[in-house]
Amino acid sequence: MNISAFMATSLDGFIARKDGSLDWLDHANALVPKGEDCGYSEFIEDIDVIVMGSRTFGKVLSFPEWPYGKRRLIVLSSKSLEIPKHLKGTVSCSRETPEALAKRLKAEGAKNIYVDGGLTFQSFLKAGLVHEFTVTIIPVLLGDGIRLFGGIPEDISLDLLSEKHYGFGFVQLRYAIQKPKQ
Amino acid sequence: MNISAFMATSLDGFIARKDGSLDWLDHANALVPKGEDCGYSEFIEDIDVIVMGSRTFGKVLSFPEWPYGKRRLIVLSSKSLEIPKHLKGTVSCSRETPEALAKRLKAEGAKNIYVDGGLTFQSFLKAGLVHEFTVTIIPVLLGDGIRLFGGIPEDISLDLLSEKHYGFGFVQLRYAIQKPKQ
Repeated sequence: MNISAFMATSLDGFIARKDGSLDWLDHANALVPKGEDCGYSEFIEDIDVIVMGSRTFGKVLSFPEWPYGKRRLIVLSSKSLEIPKHLKGTVSCSRETPEALAKRLKAEGAKNIYVDGGLTFQSFLKAGLVHEFTVTIIPVLLGDGIRLFGGIPEDISLDLLSEKHYGFGFVQLRYAIQKPKQ
Repeated sequence: MNISAFMATSLDGFIARKDGSLDWLDHANALVPKGEDCGYSEFIEDIDVIVMGSRTFGKVLSFPEWPYGKRRLIVLSSKSLEIPKHLKGTVSCSRETPEALAKRLKAEGAKNIYVDGGLTFQSFLKAGLVHEFTVTIIPVLLGDGIRLFGGIPEDISLDLLSEKHYGFGFVQLRYAIQKPKQ
């Protein structure tokens, strides 16, 4: 089982403003040629389970369209969460730790897990469960906001798997964690 | 007059550990082929004045050799600083603000200023005085340390000028600030 992430960040390491706002990303995306999704559809194609926190889930619910189709999604939340009726077939809620969830998904035969949202990504990274991740660096400094990376118990060495840069200034880096626990 | 910076950072945005230690960078550099300096000598060749804070200066003094030859260096420090005798011809100390120093250096005919060290780089960036900078991203996460970037009064939009990646996993990005003040 492979656990990965696919995130956009400002050059100074923020995935959103403090209030969760993505206006700066929308602004940057306005310069992206139509039809260019920076590899997202290729990435998501292989994913069978998406995992995110309740904050990111709330954000995704606010999008004009549900972006994940029939793909299975698990919201990690310590609070009980209301799942909209039309999503109850694919979306579930869990209070499991990253370790417990990873173990369960593996036992269930899941192949490719996508952890999304800053805190969820960080908690899986901290637990040594992430195998690889893709970071798209947007050419802007925000100065403050919600961080992509957080504290970790020890250094994490990475292997650069691939690099791509775009005419509109985005740089996409894909890294593997050198020693994932699982 | 052009003000630029040339920095190495962990992927999570740290230029040193909390105590200033660069062990992680030494560790990464051990994998760099001999003779490969990732463009540093080419960068420094054009520089006529280096500006740094007292902390970075202290670090440079601890290196086995003084790396800047006869190049002029200004240490920004609010405290009075002891300059070693053999460096008194090229190193001076100043309490000027970034704005005042930039104005003076321009009046003196300086062409290419290199601002080094996290706080100095941040204070020039905050003041809108930096024209471009090169960031070399080292494939490691540290989780904590001294940040490359800090708070800024408003978003800073960047243009990606060039990109280079190395077989040993470093990625070097050069950006121009879209609207420098000077």
